Amino acid sequence: MKQNNMRLPSLTALDPARRTAIQAHLDDLAKPQGSLGRLEDLALQLAWISGQVRPGDPEAFLLTFAGDHGIVRQGVSRFPAEVTPQMVANIAAGGAAVNVLCRANRIRHRVVDVGVAVPCPYPGVSQRNVMRGTNDPTQAPAMTREQAEACLQAGMDEVAQLPELPFALLGLGEMGIGNSAVAALLVSVLGAIDPALAVGPGTGVQGPALQHKLEVVQQALERRRPDPGDPVGVLAAVGGCEFGAMAGAMLAGAARGWAVIVDGYIAGAAALLALALEPAVRDYLVWSHRSAEPGARKLLDDLELEPVLDLGLRLGEGTGAALAVPILRSACAVLREMATFSGARVSQAQ
Amino acid sequence: MKQNNMRLPSLTALDPARRTAIQAHLDDLAKPQGSLGRLEDLALQLAWISGQVRPGDPEAFLLTFAGDHGIVRQGVSRFPAEVTPQMVANIAAGGAAVNVLCRANRIRHRVVDVGVAVPCPYPGVSQRNVMRGTNDPTQAPAMTREQAEACLQAGMDEVAQLPELPFALLGLGEMGIGNSAVAALLVSVLGAIDPALAVGPGTGVQGPALQHKLEVVQQALERRRPDPGDPVGVLAAVGGCEFGAMAGAMLAGAARGWAVIVDGYIAGAAALLALALEPAVRDYLVWSHRSAEPGARKLLDDLELEPVLDLGLRLGEGTGAALAVPILRSACAVLREMATFSGARVSQAQ
Repeated sequence: MKQNNMRLPSLTALDPARRTAIQAHLDDLAKPQGSLGRLEDLALQLAWISGQVRPGDPEAFLLTFAGDHGIVRQGVSRFPAEVTPQMVANIAAGGAAVNVLCRANRIRHRVVDVGVAVPCPYPGVSQRNVMRGTNDPTQAPAMTREQAEACLQAGMDEVAQLPELPFALLGLGEMGIGNSAVAALLVSVLGAIDPALAVGPGTGVQGPALQHKLEVVQQALERRRPDPGDPVGVLAAVGGCEFGAMAGAMLAGAARGWAVIVDGYIAGAAALLALALEPAVRDYLVWSHRSAEPGARKLLDDLELEPVLDLGLRLGEGTGAALAVPILRSACAVLREMATFSGARVSQAQ
Repeated sequence: MKQNNMRLPSLTALDPARRTAIQAHLDDLAKPQGSLGRLEDLALQLAWISGQVRPGDPEAFLLTFAGDHGIVRQGVSRFPAEVTPQMVANIAAGGAAVNVLCRANRIRHRVVDVGVAVPCPYPGVSQRNVMRGTNDPTQAPAMTREQAEACLQAGMDEVAQLPELPFALLGLGEMGIGNSAVAALLVSVLGAIDPALAVGPGTGVQGPALQHKLEVVQQALERRRPDPGDPVGVLAAVGGCEFGAMAGAMLAGAARGWAVIVDGYIAGAAALLALALEPAVRDYLVWSHRSAEPGARKLLDDLELEPVLDLGLRLGEGTGAALAVPILRSACAVLREMATFSGARVSQAQ
């Protein structure tokens, strides 16, 4: 593996022994054991991350990283690349789905230009542009190794700007026309998933256009031949900027001891990158939903992960992460506020 | 069919033509069409119920109806019947799961004694007791026809006490040891589902005890032989009070023009009762989650319904309805607040 020039946050896996006290508290709550199903699993994970058997009501932050992709020149999306900066402007103005869902669910949100092809000088946009759109990976590496590291660093730096709380929820999402093709590239390499499974309709590509998208992805893989043992090299080879930034933000969030909420398929590809860089991040990741993108099911099955929601979302921006936040807060509240069998004088099962 | 002595709320099915304008607005929002998946279906239904293309942020109410069941004397539950009033006390004190989830999700909650075996004189409990626990339906009809009607009326009266808002969310849940056996009875009769599918573990009955529960349900069905064409008669034959009250509340909520959130399998059985009494209630029902109870999948498949959540919940009380509320509010917010393609100057798909 090549030497990385940057310092990644140091992470330690969470101590399995610390789960015991949380599980005991969950089992003492006045309800049939396990009757809150997945909500109990989430409560256990969040309490474990927080270090508190009764976690407080967490603040929630959501970052939407935006970037453009040279692969769009191969005709892999129904939308023109100009939509990326238009949507950054729409998000900055508060009118996108992710804004609406963050307001509805008490989440502080920011959009970050990490790789948009044109400047996005709108109030509220965090300016961390590494490059004005990646190169087309069917023709050349998407970016240099230094640019790949700068993308990871941009994500870490964005998290460093957030309030220093001991525990919080951090959602990661993205905006970038063409990035479902790039996600397929990353998932194929880092998740060892057949490109035919990893490539999906994205914003709605169907039929021959979907077959063409698969061929473009296969061509990029053949020409770049990225080494899965060198995750920064993979990022440099296929892109893209928002994937690197999301991965960096995931590592930085976990290093703070925060729960990291992965949005959909594209953020999931970034999570594969984060996991390749630092496997200990796994304990901190909460998968918000099962994307409608067909590769998402395979990815979640391979990682043995169960998502919070299964609403057929395929929008991105962080929308699924935002929708999962009230469920995660509810899970914390159960541990924090529910009475116990003994405290409430309720008889146990016979 | 026997003559009913009571007046049920009059309901009219929603006008399909009114969906067109809502769908057009959904499709004009600045996102790939349909990319918010099930959230768009929910937005459409809620807007349709509310009569507004851009529905306001709805208030949410949740009622937990409590009752006891003579069938418990046949040994169908792991918990003793005394847990019903103990849990009513725990709910009144604010320490139950449903309280926690209502507080976490800005929902006004009330617990109602409609059929508990002993008085529940706790502050905050709505006193609408119809009978001190039903009869054992393996031995006698669970209640009289007049009592069945009084249960329906209790649910309607409880809704009448809520603020008169033009649109709101109304969740219905229950507490009652043994009521998963009663739900199986109702689902078998009103849903025409094989008792072997309709009977499940409830609070955790397994192995020979589960087989015994099935035999008790089969015996009650054979001895009562309720007529599915006479829903009030079915309620009187097999019980129970909280099912009747939930059905009455569903009809009253829909008559107000509110969206009615069905909790789990037991509230689902009450929804079958409401649907049998008034099929037009269907448009107003939102299925909050797919219960872990095995019959729930069959019930939802038969009704061609897709639940909001699939978290393996099997607690009841209204917990699943409470968890669905932020998703439903988010669906309303998308219609109300998202920018349109034209308004945000975002390019459409090519």
